[in-house]
Formats: sequence, structure tokens, C-alpha cells
Amino acid sequence: MPRRTIPRDKADDYTNENAARRRDFIREQTGADLSHVASYSLDPAILQGNIENFVGVAQVPIGVAGPLRINGEHARGDFFIPLATTEGTLVASYNRGMRLLTECGGVKTTVIEQFMQRAPVFIFDDAERARAFGQWVEAHFASIQQVAEATTRFGKLVNIHQFSIGPLRHLRFNYTTGDASGQNMVGRATLAACEWIKNNYPEAPRYVLSGNMDTDKKYSRINVLLTRGRRVVAEAVVGKEIVKEILGVDTKELFEVRQISTTGAFLAGSANNGSHASNGLAAMFIATGQDAADISESQAAITYSQLLENGDYYWSITLTSLIVGTRGGGTGLVTQKECLDMLGCYGPGKADKFAEICAAVALAGEMSLSGAVLHGDWVSSHDRLGRHHG
Amino acid sequence: MPRRTIPRDKADDYTNENAARRRDFIREQTGADLSHVASYSLDPAILQGNIENFVGVAQVPIGVAGPLRINGEHARGDFFIPLATTEGTLVASYNRGMRLLTECGGVKTTVIEQFMQRAPVFIFDDAERARAFGQWVEAHFASIQQVAEATTRFGKLVNIHQFSIGPLRHLRFNYTTGDASGQNMVGRATLAACEWIKNNYPEAPRYVLSGNMDTDKKYSRINVLLTRGRRVVAEAVVGKEIVKEILGVDTKELFEVRQISTTGAFLAGSANNGSHASNGLAAMFIATGQDAADISESQAAITYSQLLENGDYYWSITLTSLIVGTRGGGTGLVTQKECLDMLGCYGPGKADKFAEICAAVALAGEMSLSGAVLHGDWVSSHDRLGRHHG
Amino acid sequence: MPRRTIPRDKADDYTNENAARRRDFIREQTGADLSHVASYSLDPAILQGNIENFVGVAQVPIGVAGPLRINGEHARGDFFIPLATTEGTLVASYNRGMRLLTECGGVKTTVIEQFMQRAPVFIFDDAERARAFGQWVEAHFASIQQVAEATTRFGKLVNIHQFSIGPLRHLRFNYTTGDASGQNMVGRATLAACEWIKNNYPEAPRYVLSGNMDTDKKYSRINVLLTRGRRVVAEAVVGKEIVKEILGVDTKELFEVRQISTTGAFLAGSANNGSHASNGLAAMFIATGQDAADISESQAAITYSQLLENGDYYWSITLTSLIVGTRGGGTGLVTQKECLDMLGCYGPGKADKFAEICAAVALAGEMSLSGAVLHGDWVSSHDRLGRHHG
Amino acid sequence: MPRRTIPRDKADDYTNENAARRRDFIREQTGADLSHVASYSLDPAILQGNIENFVGVAQVPIGVAGPLRINGEHARGDFFIPLATTEGTLVASYNRGMRLLTECGGVKTTVIEQFMQRAPVFIFDDAERARAFGQWVEAHFASIQQVAEATTRFGKLVNIHQFSIGPLRHLRFNYTTGDASGQNMVGRATLAACEWIKNNYPEAPRYVLSGNMDTDKKYSRINVLLTRGRRVVAEAVVGKEIVKEILGVDTKELFEVRQISTTGAFLAGSANNGSHASNGLAAMFIATGQDAADISESQAAITYSQLLENGDYYWSITLTSLIVGTRGGGTGLVTQKECLDMLGCYGPGKADKFAEICAAVALAGEMSLSGAVLHGDWVSSHDRLGRHHG
Repeated sequence: MPRRTIPRDKADDYTNENAARRRDFIREQTGADLSHVASYSLDPAILQGNIENFVGVAQVPIGVAGPLRINGEHARGDFFIPLATTEGTLVASYNRGMRLLTECGGVKTTVIEQFMQRAPVFIFDDAERARAFGQWVEAHFASIQQVAEATTRFGKLVNIHQFSIGPLRHLRFNYTTGDASGQNMVGRATLAACEWIKNNYPEAPRYVLSGNMDTDKKYSRINVLLTRGRRVVAEAVVGKEIVKEILGVDTKELFEVRQISTTGAFLAGSANNGSHASNGLAAMFIATGQDAADISESQAAITYSQLLENGDYYWSITLTSLIVGTRGGGTGLVTQKECLDMLGCYGPGKADKFAEICAAVALAGEMSLSGAVLHGDWVSSHDRLGRHHG
Repeated sequence: MPRRTIPRDKADDYTNENAARRRDFIREQTGADLSHVASYSLDPAILQGNIENFVGVAQVPIGVAGPLRINGEHARGDFFIPLATTEGTLVASYNRGMRLLTECGGVKTTVIEQFMQRAPVFIFDDAERARAFGQWVEAHFASIQQVAEATTRFGKLVNIHQFSIGPLRHLRFNYTTGDASGQNMVGRATLAACEWIKNNYPEAPRYVLSGNMDTDKKYSRINVLLTRGRRVVAEAVVGKEIVKEILGVDTKELFEVRQISTTGAFLAGSANNGSHASNGLAAMFIATGQDAADISESQAAITYSQLLENGDYYWSITLTSLIVGTRGGGTGLVTQKECLDMLGCYGPGKADKFAEICAAVALAGEMSLSGAVLHGDWVSSHDRLGRHHG
Repeated sequence: MPRRTIPRDKADDYTNENAARRRDFIREQTGADLSHVASYSLDPAILQGNIENFVGVAQVPIGVAGPLRINGEHARGDFFIPLATTEGTLVASYNRGMRLLTECGGVKTTVIEQFMQRAPVFIFDDAERARAFGQWVEAHFASIQQVAEATTRFGKLVNIHQFSIGPLRHLRFNYTTGDASGQNMVGRATLAACEWIKNNYPEAPRYVLSGNMDTDKKYSRINVLLTRGRRVVAEAVVGKEIVKEILGVDTKELFEVRQISTTGAFLAGSANNGSHASNGLAAMFIATGQDAADISESQAAITYSQLLENGDYYWSITLTSLIVGTRGGGTGLVTQKECLDMLGCYGPGKADKFAEICAAVALAGEMSLSGAVLHGDWVSSHDRLGRHHG
Repeated sequence: MPRRTIPRDKADDYTNENAARRRDFIREQTGADLSHVASYSLDPAILQGNIENFVGVAQVPIGVAGPLRINGEHARGDFFIPLATTEGTLVASYNRGMRLLTECGGVKTTVIEQFMQRAPVFIFDDAERARAFGQWVEAHFASIQQVAEATTRFGKLVNIHQFSIGPLRHLRFNYTTGDASGQNMVGRATLAACEWIKNNYPEAPRYVLSGNMDTDKKYSRINVLLTRGRRVVAEAVVGKEIVKEILGVDTKELFEVRQISTTGAFLAGSANNGSHASNGLAAMFIATGQDAADISESQAAITYSQLLENGDYYWSITLTSLIVGTRGGGTGLVTQKECLDMLGCYGPGKADKFAEICAAVALAGEMSLSGAVLHGDWVSSHDRLGRHHG
């Protein structure tokens, strides 16, 4: 059977005509009508570097939630949050959490640190040689840094973590990458560094550009511990009364149940000891042109809370590996840029601000969902089951 | 400061007019122009149950890759895959993997099992009472099943896993949910079951509808072990020569490096011992109206491979917790339905087929990316660094 | 260089003379004086099945702690606990925790369940065949059970968990093993079952007796979730005043710090969200002839606690994979039996009782250590650093 | 009911008389005869700092295995290994692995690095203050180092890892501790450092001496990643023929099955992707006066192997958190010292050597056990089941 090839135009593939040709081809091959996919307002010419074999767009509904008051270092004020999702109640639920936070004076947000990684592995004949190599790398850090940073305007090599397994030496290059999420930037820089190492280290050691300790676009414990992307905290004290009013639950009970859910998360081996952060993050990522695959890493979170003497509730969420950017990637596409504009987060100098907003949204979701889960208990107590039959 | 409230129309909020009113409000509040967000072809009236505070859509570019030949139980034939992404090279990379697989005769795919969970926790005075309760639940499974299943046409309660921590008894209800991803369905069914249990168990025990052992929309070890959504395998034997031709690498070397990358993944505590599955899955999820937050769970994968005597390469990927549906959620929205149509996967009876396609795509990505990482090594060997400077 | 061979007597190696011959040989080869190693009161003739190349004994000091009041199902009364250790303060610290618990009325203990595993893996050509095999295994469980149980007087096959990876089907056989820890028993039974399966399943599938999902003598998440050995809970309410008196700390503060330490454990990816259980368990294991290698699994624990309205503290520890026995292994050796006798735990029908005592001891240690760590804080507050310089 | 108190002599408790008094008391209370426990050759006077409430000793049988040829940096030559255990076949199995390794020319061993930790947590009002504190700690590292090192002759503070969760700042102090395992040493040093910090940092922040990120005497991912105790590698190339002869298996098959067992370990969430290291380590620990509770951490291992062109097998094991010492703890007790003498490892300057021997033993066990598991397969193939019925 002859391969049916998707039409491409090597000269200039990013045109409406070529998109239409491909839609025709797909329609022919599969019978699918792609007329809605064809309804887009963007100019295909801008898509180079974002997509190949462009045929049109997915229209993902956007709802807005807010205002969410944030008292961060970078994000300050009341924000309206664009959430692109197809899951009913998501916007409403986050909205409720935002109301709670805003009425309590807002969320405090802090970016703790930022690192993006590429982690090549160097292969030796034995462990001793691998260890000696590691010492050499440490001693030559300044040169390696210079070589790596020469490939990029924004990437800065902060340090190199080293991990030994048998005859292997994994080097985890930690960069700051400014306002880009930076995966490509650090890949290029690390390749240059590896080539320099190979050319300068006596044994000219063999290496592979990733030994799987980066770890890119997948959840890992190392990312949670050592940060990938940004480590961001959102925290707030919410009043006992207002929690009762908005979430319908008692803070004391909330705290009691928290003891249960954190042990559940511990036993389950979860990426988050709270409820989950992915609903809000995924919706923001799609709306603002982030890489949705990075939900894999960005979902990881640690909630930490205390019940205060007066019954108020201190609540924090730490996103340990939030991968976001306000430059590059999909951030400049038409609707994506508009959504970043809603947050005042488009372009250079905005990534920390955007990260703070993400964390604040995650905290809003955590509160709202925690309340809802517990409220299920109250529902059960009060025999209002019917309302849920919907 | 008075709260600025997002306009809503309690009578009928799902209209173009109300979306426009909200855009006006947001523009006023934030200065963001939302004219592209406003460029949509869907009818807001259909969005009830998918979004609140609708203002327009995110336009996420779709590229197509393929054909990908699949020899599954449910998916059979050559498929063109819609990938909604803003990450350059993603479509091209998956396309390359698909070409490799198709030229080798295609991917074999198998859905191993399907489970969707809700995991309430029952709270007792001590561990002995919790244990006695667990035995009672086991003895009354048939009744519980009947009550749970009465709330849903499609959900079937298969079994209940039990986990004891101190005085707590976590019950993990495992359902099959047909062609819907089923989170809401199993929530409703489990609430009914819990109420029945509470009314029938002598102590009328207190419970919370989730004790965090479900675990919803977050990666967890328990999901990887015991399956959440679908456990699907894609596997293929790819020929030594064709791997060399398409990926530019030697299968023997690929296998050697695999020994390295799997130990790296093990040390890092990763959700996937291969490269990553999230790029392709996220792009398919957005295109086809899946819940993008479920990338958190769906990313988990185990690759298993063997180098055959003749140098060919047996390669498999097992997605352990793939959450997908072809009914409900966002699957019926306009572009989403068109993309499901491209795959012949819209509606009832199609979820297994769609899951098989997802796994096949993941395998294509795994191959292509593994080749690319290793090729970095060759690049380094051959001093072709410049080509990557781009 | 000729191999120097350790002397062995094939006819009857378990004599004082042969032990002496080997000590002479070792002394010759290494210069080590083994006169204390030679000071033992046991009869080497009983060591067959416990050791090879016997040369003498390690003398591990035993201290006693207690009384520890236990109100269990199997363990009831006040116990004195033999702890074999060389770590100063261990006995004293556990003793303190026991005093606290005993003064508060004792510990309640409950064995939740017992399972010992062997987990062979069956290898197929593809995932579909592996899945079909799994269904066959389920359908033939009764026969498999009969074959497995025919090899052992005490082992009972409860169920078989199945896990699919690619073309592999891991079967995790779960047995109860009475009063023996049972690793050998279940190995033999599972081998018989596998042979039967191989002879009866049409494809005569290849298998390996362990696919590493048992998981024997190493910590694993699967053991923590699904129990290996015994899952045992110890729990108590300790009074605010008595905690202050004995541990020198406030229960409110203890609970506040607990919120911190559980998030620390979660972030670190620990086997125990409390302090640690291994000190006491290791010391009991050595004293009573348990397999000390099983500390690997037995250390895993989940503490769960609540601060009560009146300031009293509910505290529980759940050992999820406690591997112990009161028959077989080293339990019948001379000092080991004496130590089991101290607990009334030697021989048949005693393993549940012994497991309960282990959990109670672990709880005593958790309390004492938690107090000590926190007291460090108080120390720091009160500038009593000198006392610690010791 | 009056508390029955274990007799103690505050003036001088470490005498045979007081041990006898306690044995009488225990005999009275429990009926246990402790005559074998009383058969010891050590002088109780030396036990101060090792045990409290001494009553006698556990006699743990010691078998010897070897010779094991090691070509390490610190351990060089043929060693006979003392193994204290009550588990039959353990000595024989390790002995087999040692024969294999020795006949192949021996094991190469390398200590990669050494760190012992104490990890206090400092508590702030919010995340921003916690972050600022972290920067201050970094800037004042030299002073902190000086204060910490002033408390100890052997401990050297290498660096401080920092981890942020909400308003908390975990500081993980990494020390080298010479030839002692060093837990107490680093506790004392860190307490001094914390007090200095508290007195010098403007806010006089509250802290707890451990925030559970150390993590002491329990398995954790952080220890595996960042090393606790020593990270040691043992590696060897074993010949195809000799493996066949001694283990009865084919290296090709061994390697094939290894692909299976590493995925099993990955899925199970194991502390070791190989078989297990704890049998040999526990037996050595008990024989040589190590802290047996540290088996919890020391069991963690990563095996990495490659099948060479000629069919020979490269095999390595990396112990990531081996906690051992040759000074202090139980190393000076009578039989324990004798066993260290067998290895030429007693006293100052010997801990690296001892660590290398531990790793070599672990590799021997890994090989022997891997062979045995696979041989089970052959057993099954050749219907020699009867031999295992024993």
C-alpha cells in the first residue's frame, strides 16, 4: 500500500492555502469536516517555530474568574484570570476560591528560585574515572559557564549538580532563563558546554545529551526537591468566619481532615499532598500559550497549613516546578497574547509576575476544592444527596 | 475598595451578547484587547456544562502528523493525528516516529484494563473498628454495587480496594465508565454508596468523599500500579536498518544508552522510565477535548524493550493511567469533535480505540525523541554543532 | 595465586571442632583473634538451616526497656522489651516513650492484615497474549491455589495481584503464612504454582520466579500500599499534662511541628512520615532472631495524629510491612528464644502478638524521639547548649 | 497497679552484678530463663555509651565467606567476610558470588563521596522572609562552618542544601565525618550552628533541629539522590563462561531478564532496581558493630550493567547511602572488633576501606541472587522441582 503523504510546501508552508490543502487531504482521507478548525483569526505566517503541518486551530472556550487580589513582589493588585477549559464548574470553583482570598485581603506570593536544566551523562570505563571527571568539571566550572553562556543572551549557568551511578557521571546543568521557559535555550547551551568538555578533558569522554535526570516534561522527585522552572509560594490567612460563609465549612474541621488527606497523599505516593493544582494551571497554560505538556512537572505541589489560635487558617501552597514563560513559545500567538495582556504579563520582565499569579490561582483552587470535598461530608450529614444527582 | 464583579446573566448566560459584555468589562479593567479571543465559530449555547463566564476561545494551532499505522484491537488502519500545540518541532518529531513505525508494519496496541476511582475515607475511633468496617464492606459489596450503579447508566463498580491507616479506612472504588473519562460519574455513584453505607452500618460512620487516595488529576504511584483511566500498551519491532535510516542511530547503541537512561529515571524518581509521553498526549488532549489537567496522570509510562538477536529492536510503552473519553466533557465541542472525527473516534464505543491511538502516538514520540537525544551524541562526535545553533 | 579455601567438613560441618578449624584458618589468613567470637553457649548442631561456615557468634548487648502496657487483641498486659543494640541512649529513649504510654493507660494495637509474596513474571510475545493469560489465571485461581497450598502446611494463597507491563504479566501471589515470616514457604509454593501454570496453560509460557514486584528485603511503595508481612497499628491518646511532664513539650507545639515534619517527609520522599521506626525494630529483630535484612521493609510507617479539643494528643503509627515470625528462622536459637520468652512470644500462635508488641514499641519510640527533636528547640530557646556538648 | 521498675544502679550500672539483678527481675516478671543471654565474654564496664539496662547479649551466629578479591582504592587483596545472620543459605549464596568475582579477577571499588546530615528547619512568617534568610545563610556560610566545626574534631561542614516550603526554610547540613558514621557528631555541630544563627540573624528565628529532611534511619529519595553516609560503587566484568559455570546461567539471558526486573523495580517503586543488598549488609553490620537500624538507608542501591560484545557482563552496583564507621558506636565491642580485624578495618583511617568491602559484598550477593532467580526459570524448564521441596 502506497504511503499517503500529508501535503507540504517546502518553499512556504505557513499560508492559508497550504492549511486548506491539508484540510482537503485530511477530509479526503478521513471524512472529517474541518470547517470549524478552519475558523481562525490568526495569520499562519506567524506560526513558524510553533507548529508544523498547520491545518487550523482548536477552539478552547475561555472563561474568566476573579478578581483575585495578589500582594506579591511582582504581581500586585486585582487580577482577572483567563481559564481555557472544557470542564464545567472549573471556572466557578476557582472563582469561589478567589473570592475567599480576595475578601481576606489577598494572597501573598513569592518566587523562591528559578532553574531550568539539561542533564547530560558522561560515560567512563569505571567509577573512579567518572569521579575524577566530576572533580575536573568542578574545577573548570568558570570555563564551562563561559562556553555555555556564549550561546544565549538570557541563559545563565548557575551551577552543575553531579550524580554518580557506576561508571556514569550525570551532570545536571542549572540555568536561569529569564522570561522564557528556556528548555531549548539550555539544551543549546549545554550541548556547547559538553562539546567543550569533550574537547578539553583528556579522555575525550563519550556523552549523551540527556541521561534522563533533567527530567523534562515528566514528574520526578528530583524536580520537586531541586526545583525545575520556578519554585513559587502563595500563602494567605483566611478568616474562620469567611471560610464558613464562602466554603460552608469550619476551619477546625478543615484542619482535622487535612491530617487525613496528607497521610492519604503520602501513602498514595502523590505529586501533591493537597488536592490538586492541575485544573487551574492547565487552563491558564492553554489560555496563555504555555507548553501544556509541562503540566506534567508543574502539577507538583506541597501544601502546608496551620490552624491559628483564633480559628483562622494559615494556608500555603508551594509549586516546586512551575514551568512558565512570557516570551517565546506560544506566548505571542493572538489569543494567547491577549490573555497574557489581561494579566499584564506579556513579554520581557513578566515571567516572575506570571508565576506568582499561577501560584495564587493554585491556592484559590486548593481552598475551593478542599471545601467542596469536605462539604461532601456535610452533604452526607444533611441528606441533600438529591442536589448532586443533577 | 468595592469588588468589581464580572457580569453574569442568571437567566441565560451562554450567549454571544453576554460573552461580549464580559469582554468589554475585562477590556475596561485590564486594557486587554480581546478581539481574537472573540473570533470563534462555536455557538455559546452549547457550552453549558463546559465553562462558566465564557468570553471567547483560545486558538491553539493544530498540525497533523501521520499516517500512523495501527494494528490494534479497536484501532486498525492508518491514522492522521491532530496535534494542538505551540511548541515547534513537536509535530515534525512525532511525524518521524510515525513514519518509522508505519514503515515497520505498524504498532500493535492493547487496552489492558480500565478503572476510574473515587476514594472516600471512613473515620473511626480506632484501628480495630476500621478493620471491622472493612470486613463489613467486603461482605456487603453486592449491595453497595447496586446502590452505586443505580446512579449511572455507564458506570460499573468492579471492586473496592481498601487501605488502612490508623483509625481510618480508605475505600478506593474502582469503576469502569464506558466511553466517558468518568470522574463525575464515579463521584456521584460513590457518594450514593457512602450514604448507603452510612445509613446501614451500625455506627453510622463519618466519612469524607475523598481521602486523597483516588488520586485525581495528579501523578501518583498508586495510579501507576493499580491503573487509573486506561492501562494501554503500544508495541512494535522496528528494524535495525530502518532505524538507522530514519533516526540515524544504531539499535545496539540505542539499547546501550537505554540502560543508562532507565537508571537515570530510576534515580530521579521519574513518572516515566523512557523519554516522556506528555508532548504528544497534551497535544492530542487539547485537540480532541480531553481534560488537559489529566496530563498529570496520563504522562506516567513504562517503556520496556529488548534488543533482538538480529539487531532489530522490540519496543513497548505502557501508559498506566491514561484518562480519556469520547463522550461528554469537551468532546462534543466543534473543533474537538472534528478532530475526533479525523480519528473516527467521536461518541459511544470509541474510547478504547482512542486510547489505543494515544498509546501508539506515545510510542512514536518515544522513538523519535530517543533517537534525537542519542543523535546529539553523534552530533558531538561529528562536530556538527552549528546546525543546532539555529 | 592459589585460592585459599575456607575449611568445610562435608560430613558434619556443624561442630565446635569445625568452627575452631575455621577460626584457626581465619586467624592465619587475617591475623584476627577470634577468641570472643568463640565464646558462645549455643550448640553448633542446631545451626543447620541458619548459617554456613559457622565460626562463632557476634555478642550484641541487650538492654531491657519497659514495662510497656499494651491493650491489644493478642498482646495484653505489661511487657519488658529486649533490645539488642550498640547505640547508646536507644534503650533509654524507648523506655521514656514506654513510660509515657503506660502512664496514659497503654497502647492499643491491631493487626490489620497479613500477606507474604512471591511475584513471578510471565513473558509473552505481546501485551494481548499477556492479558489473555491474566484472565486465564483469574479463572483458574482455585486450581492454582490448590497446587500452591499443597506444598505447605501453613501457607494459604489469598489472592493474586496482576500487573501488566508491555508483553509481561507480573503475578503477585499473596499468602498468609501463619507464625513464620514465610519467604521460603511462599517461594516454594509459588514455584509449584508456576510449574502447574506452565504445564496447563496452552502456550507453556516462559517465566522467571521473581520479576522484582515482590519486593523482597527492600523498601518499596507497593509494599507500603499493599502490605508485606503484617500491617499493624499502634495507637494511644496521651494526656497533655503527662506529655509535658515526661517529654517536656507542649502537645499544641508538638502538633504544630508535626505539620512541618510531615511536609518535610513528603518532600524528601521518605519511607515514614514520622521520625523513624528502625531503631527499636532493629534492636528487637536482633534480640529475637528475626531477619535483620527485613528492616528494609519493616521500617516503613505512617503516623497519623490529631490534637484533641482538650489538648490531649491522639497518636497512631501504622507499620505497613512488618516482617516477623515466631517460628522458624532464628527464633529457636538460644538467646533469641529467651528473648521471645520474655515477651511470651515463642512458637506457634504468637506472631500476631509479637507484631503488636513491635508496633507498640515503634509508637513509644516515635513519641520519645518527637519530643527530643522538639526539645532541641526549647534547648535552643533556653541556651542550655552546654548540656549537649557531653 | 504499681509500676514495676527495672532495677538500675545510679552509681555504676555497668557491672555483671547489675546485669544479673536485672535478669532476675525479668525472670520473675516474665518467666523467661536468660541463662544463654548471660553467657557473654565482654566486660560490661565497656558498654557505657552503647546500651542502657544491660542484661546480657544476643548470640548471633557468624559464618565466613570468601575469599573475595577486591581491587579498590582502600581495600586491596583477598578478604574473608564475617556475616552474622540466622538465615540459612545466606553465607553460601554470598560465597558463590564472591567465588565468581574472585575468579574473574576481583571487584573494583570506589568511594564517590561522603556526607552525613542534620537538617534543621527555620520557621518564618512568610515565604519571602524564609527566602531572605536563606540568602543570609549562604552569605554567612564561613561563619556557620566555623561554629559548627568548633564542636568536633572530625566533622567538616561541606555545604548546606536549602529547601523552601511555604514559610519554612529547611537547611540540610552536609558534613564529612571521617571514620565515624557521625550522626551524633553532626547533630551537635548543627545545634551549635543553629544557635549561632539564631543569635546573629536579626529576627532570631525559631527553629527545630530536624524538619525531617535529614532523613535519619529511614529510606528516602533525597538520600538516594544526594548521598547519606557514603556513595560507593563496586563493579566488575564477569566472563560469560565462568558465569555459566558458577551461576548456571547464560549472560545473554541474564541481561534479557534484567530488562524485566528493572521495569518491575521501577513500577514497584523500589529502593533498589536490582535484587536486594540488605542480606549481606545486615549480616556485616551486625558482625562489625554498625548500627543495624541504618539498614533502612543503606539498602538503597542502583545496579547498572551492560552486556559486552563478547558476551561478558559488565556489572556495577552503586550504594547511594551506606552508613558505616570504624570508630565509635559498636565497633570497639569485643566480637565486633574481632570481625573488623578480620577485614583489617578497625579504627581510624579504615572507614573508606570498610565501605568498599561492603559494596563488593553487595555486588557478590547481587550476582548470586540474580543467578538463582533466573535459575528458577531453568529449574522449571528442567522439571527439577523436587530438589527445592527440601
